[in-house]
Amino acid sequence: MNKNHYCIIMAGGLGSRFWPVSRNSKPKQFLDILGTGKTFIQNTFDRFARIMPVENIIVVTSVQYKSLVEEQLPQLKKEHLLLEPYRRNTAPCMAYATYKLLSENPDASVVVTPSDHLIMNDDLFAETIKNAMDYADSNDVLITLGIKPNRAETAYGYIQMNKNSALSINGNVSYNVKTFTEKPSEELAEVFVNSGEFLWNSGIFIWNIKTIQKELEAHQSEIAILFGEGSGLYNTPGEKPFINKVYEECKSISIDYGIMEKTEKAVVYPASFGWSDIGTWESLYGFHKKDQKGNLVKCNETLLRDVTDSVVISDGEEKLIVVSGLDNFMVVNTPDMMVVCPRDESSLKTLFAELPIKGLGKYQ
Amino acid sequence: MNKNHYCIIMAGGLGSRFWPVSRNSKPKQFLDILGTGKTFIQNTFDRFARIMPVENIIVVTSVQYKSLVEEQLPQLKKEHLLLEPYRRNTAPCMAYATYKLLSENPDASVVVTPSDHLIMNDDLFAETIKNAMDYADSNDVLITLGIKPNRAETAYGYIQMNKNSALSINGNVSYNVKTFTEKPSEELAEVFVNSGEFLWNSGIFIWNIKTIQKELEAHQSEIAILFGEGSGLYNTPGEKPFINKVYEECKSISIDYGIMEKTEKAVVYPASFGWSDIGTWESLYGFHKKDQKGNLVKCNETLLRDVTDSVVISDGEEKLIVVSGLDNFMVVNTPDMMVVCPRDESSLKTLFAELPIKGLGKYQ
Repeated sequence: MNKNHYCIIMAGGLGSRFWPVSRNSKPKQFLDILGTGKTFIQNTFDRFARIMPVENIIVVTSVQYKSLVEEQLPQLKKEHLLLEPYRRNTAPCMAYATYKLLSENPDASVVVTPSDHLIMNDDLFAETIKNAMDYADSNDVLITLGIKPNRAETAYGYIQMNKNSALSINGNVSYNVKTFTEKPSEELAEVFVNSGEFLWNSGIFIWNIKTIQKELEAHQSEIAILFGEGSGLYNTPGEKPFINKVYEECKSISIDYGIMEKTEKAVVYPASFGWSDIGTWESLYGFHKKDQKGNLVKCNETLLRDVTDSVVISDGEEKLIVVSGLDNFMVVNTPDMMVVCPRDESSLKTLFAELPIKGLGKYQ
Repeated sequence: MNKNHYCIIMAGGLGSRFWPVSRNSKPKQFLDILGTGKTFIQNTFDRFARIMPVENIIVVTSVQYKSLVEEQLPQLKKEHLLLEPYRRNTAPCMAYATYKLLSENPDASVVVTPSDHLIMNDDLFAETIKNAMDYADSNDVLITLGIKPNRAETAYGYIQMNKNSALSINGNVSYNVKTFTEKPSEELAEVFVNSGEFLWNSGIFIWNIKTIQKELEAHQSEIAILFGEGSGLYNTPGEKPFINKVYEECKSISIDYGIMEKTEKAVVYPASFGWSDIGTWESLYGFHKKDQKGNLVKCNETLLRDVTDSVVISDGEEKLIVVSGLDNFMVVNTPDMMVVCPRDESSLKTLFAELPIKGLGKYQ
């Protein structure tokens, strides 16, 4: 294992997308929503613990989730649990970890990753990450992993490869980035996939920290200056008050928008290790195993009768769930709430949005 | 108040009809299913406490429900809580109370009543009961209250009046009974109601205990002999072991079938105090107030959207209930079970019947 290889796991996301199972108080990354026996963040941590020393893994999360991380990742080095006092999107999150790491090991290369994605092939994933990190050690590039699409998905962002500008990452043909595109329309997604030039944006980045420091200074100078001022304070009692002050002043911006779309050093490495951001109930329904009637069932005890193509979940309670006569529905029970509604995402979104209108915001 | 007037409240019924809210462990009579602020048995007790001395009220129930009765009826005289070790239907239940009462007050007249019915007009009810009891004090009759039907209900039993044989109960024309009929078909129910000769069978009986003793001896001699043998044991430490032995040997039979259909002393008193046995979710739905969309809602907090003509109940838990896109459904949440199914009774019955098949009998 390369002692200079580090990982920054970004785990500050809110929990609205798997409402009502996930909540602000326990968002998706801290749930075992796929029933693997481990939560998303535990699976993510374990994947990187195969690739690099455990003490090189860093988790950045909201101060609100401190105890959740401590509980779920007891192996995490204490100094590598970074707590954000406010939500400022991914660029400040990454910058905090980067500047702290600069004071620890200026020769580091890092992989920056979401904490709540599904990876199907762990071996291929490890190989891909190692290839990219080895390349990033000695090259002045910002690598992003692009996933070869197998359908015209409209829920993902896309990266267009510049096919005229190829390079080899340990024998794997990669490309300079031509464009980044947000979630496309259905028609556009079809065009993207059929062109063969587009990959899904995984949100996983690999680079050495000297390169990212330079790129932050070039494209997000405010953020670079704010975090750079703490160079003597990281890993001292001064870190916490300093970070509180920085986050108050810092703008909110994503890595994609703030760095990747602006830099000329973006390289996309086409990967095929089987990936999903499991960002919606529908994608969970797609990945999860179903019974013979097409039902995704996760309950202690159930009695289903004439139930088809539905999601039936009871989480955090040992309750008997009896359902009859529903097609394409969601029945979700949690300790303080139960939801029965059509399975399409818009139903859930509408209900979620109506909670504050009804004065029930505490269930968000 | 007449000190010789007593009431026998039969409260041993099982809870299957309002499953999943009612259960064996807490059947309907111990629930406030209508949201009146009092349970059925509390309402029943209070109705009779207006008519007779509180210490003259007797409750017969299963030994299983002892603490439920003690909790819900703290005013009940300790010696008047009669516990049945086994379920033997209403005739033995009534006989136990009758023979015990014979040793207390041989001049008693009693009203025998279910514990879980709805009475709309308490004043008219009290007047009816007082009239019937006063008449029973000095007449050798078995009075049953017949409810004037307002629809061709197939869920009730019917009593046919012998219109050629009228008598006056304090000015109220009553009749000898011609026939008792179990729940009729829809066609037959129409014929019954249109004929003007039939009344609903309320299951409420009034008589003096000397008369009922004689009728028990005449038509249920086994039961009369069994309970008669305890004459020196009631209200002594010997009562409990005696009753345990009697119930083991005693057959199971109803008052209707065992006495009323056999006696020549049956008189039906037509009453119109507004009555329902609230024996099904459908009858509860009929009586309970609904929101503008026809929903019966009993929950701490709800968010309903596109929900019509449905029953939404959360019982025993403070849980937010979110429901969308259901018509004519039941959504019932209890601490250990939730049920979502079409509102017709047959759905619930089918699900209830499948519990043991699925090995989930504990939720019965």
